[in-house]
Amino acid sequence: MTISLNTIIFYFDYMGGKYIFTNILGSFVFDRNYKLVERGLEEKLLKKYRKLQEPEGKELTQILEFFRDRKFFNELKKKNTEITKRDVKKSVTNDLLIIQTINSIEELDKVINILAKRLREWYSLYYPELSYEVEDHGKFVSLVLKHKRKKSEMGADLSEKNLNPIMKLAKQLSELFGLRVHLEKYLETLVNEVCPNITAISGVTITAKLFKHAGSLRKLVLFPASTIQLLGAEKALFRHMKTGARSPKYGVLFQHPLIQKNKKKIHGKIARTLADKISLAAKIDYFKGDFIGDKLRKGLEDKFK
Amino acid sequence: MTISLNTIIFYFDYMGGKYIFTNILGSFVFDRNYKLVERGLEEKLLKKYRKLQEPEGKELTQILEFFRDRKFFNELKKKNTEITKRDVKKSVTNDLLIIQTINSIEELDKVINILAKRLREWYSLYYPELSYEVEDHGKFVSLVLKHKRKKSEMGADLSEKNLNPIMKLAKQLSELFGLRVHLEKYLETLVNEVCPNITAISGVTITAKLFKHAGSLRKLVLFPASTIQLLGAEKALFRHMKTGARSPKYGVLFQHPLIQKNKKKIHGKIARTLADKISLAAKIDYFKGDFIGDKLRKGLEDKFK
Repeated sequence: MTISLNTIIFYFDYMGGKYIFTNILGSFVFDRNYKLVERGLEEKLLKKYRKLQEPEGKELTQILEFFRDRKFFNELKKKNTEITKRDVKKSVTNDLLIIQTINSIEELDKVINILAKRLREWYSLYYPELSYEVEDHGKFVSLVLKHKRKKSEMGADLSEKNLNPIMKLAKQLSELFGLRVHLEKYLETLVNEVCPNITAISGVTITAKLFKHAGSLRKLVLFPASTIQLLGAEKALFRHMKTGARSPKYGVLFQHPLIQKNKKKIHGKIARTLADKISLAAKIDYFKGDFIGDKLRKGLEDKFK
Repeated sequence: MTISLNTIIFYFDYMGGKYIFTNILGSFVFDRNYKLVERGLEEKLLKKYRKLQEPEGKELTQILEFFRDRKFFNELKKKNTEITKRDVKKSVTNDLLIIQTINSIEELDKVINILAKRLREWYSLYYPELSYEVEDHGKFVSLVLKHKRKKSEMGADLSEKNLNPIMKLAKQLSELFGLRVHLEKYLETLVNEVCPNITAISGVTITAKLFKHAGSLRKLVLFPASTIQLLGAEKALFRHMKTGARSPKYGVLFQHPLIQKNKKKIHGKIARTLADKISLAAKIDYFKGDFIGDKLRKGLEDKFK
């Protein structure tokens, strides 16, 4: 009996498998009857077998049926968790630290405000004049802590026991102010590390807020400059789109000294140019280019003076 | 020429003044032509002159005209400020200290919540497992401060520099918790001083909250028990009056253990009895009566058990 070459090839093909299917558990080769032939690395399998197809339609349904086995469930779950954990671990970047820090600072401001107002009210039972004389919360707290009451004409003469909790509250507040300073310094080192060029143009706080609204440096790079211009003005933008109210000219960029210093008439123009330069700087920072932030900033300052 | 006795008396009356007018500057005696005769203490003047009238109608208008003089403006302003300052000084009572303290505690809770949520989010970059394992904010903070991270499968390995601000935030939080404990102890001594009977019935926090809503012990005494029952439920009460929604059964009393422990069906009844006893206790406390708070509390506990 002679066997033709064709038959031999067909025989090998048949034995060697027809379909290749890949998921997170690796690659699987199935034969014409959807029976598993071999499991391993995709590259290796592709070299070993010829004429492998990726299953489609009905074939795919058949092969997925194969994975309904309970043992694959467990295997898949385990592998999935493993990958997720690794990804979560890898996902912690300096971008995230910047966002956490700026959020903390903003929340600290809120917290300090709540407690400072309370301290003012409480301390005013003892020395009402001080709260009127000193507007700044930080200064007020430090004066309370110095505890030099001039003769108060209206304040009650509280006993040591009743003053004690007020002083403790003031102490806490002063430490919260200290924490705020610390976080600001930390934020400065972070943004200077991650994006020195953006920071040179827009300063520490605005840079951090841009990160907060964009989510990451990568996203800042992908945004067009016009989006950067409006980051932080989402609410006004949607109001504009929904009701036809005037469109916002800037979001967090509003706090930039160049806008603060100049006339309202050219605010929009400055914001546009600013966003342009920030967009450029973001790209340089993302691709680890040279530091030209100071030049960019100087250019802006010369233009709007 | 003979002068009759009548004429003499009339003559004295006329010379001695007809009207007496009193304001914060003192008392003033005017004659029939609204000219000032004498100024001094009301009592003294009333003894000295006879038949003095308080001016009314047109006479009053004439006499008020007299005070339009600029020198009285200044005198009145000075005296007024003096009185106000004295009253403000006198107005600081333990009632006010209770209200300041309970407000501080409530604001501290808000503040702690804001910062604890931030700490959880931030620390989870480093050790996400902990936030899921520990629900209580206080315990979470103290575990962060102990800084015993088990091998974290998902958390990023943050450098000392990046961990430092997180730890500082945790430190602050732990001190805020400390301040809260301190304020609670202080509040306890305050309410036990001002109103031992109410405190025995309703506990430190509820007592302080009753003060906060009523304004003072005096007002608590003046309120009917039904008002005390609903203190802190003002919003629901007005909703009930405006829209006919169900009337509230209790305000701050809701937090009382007797209500918390018992079935919902008798909540209204307990709140009513509770408010009754508190109203009684408030009167005893206000008039510095004996301490019977423990008996009142025992009676309530026996009734609803």
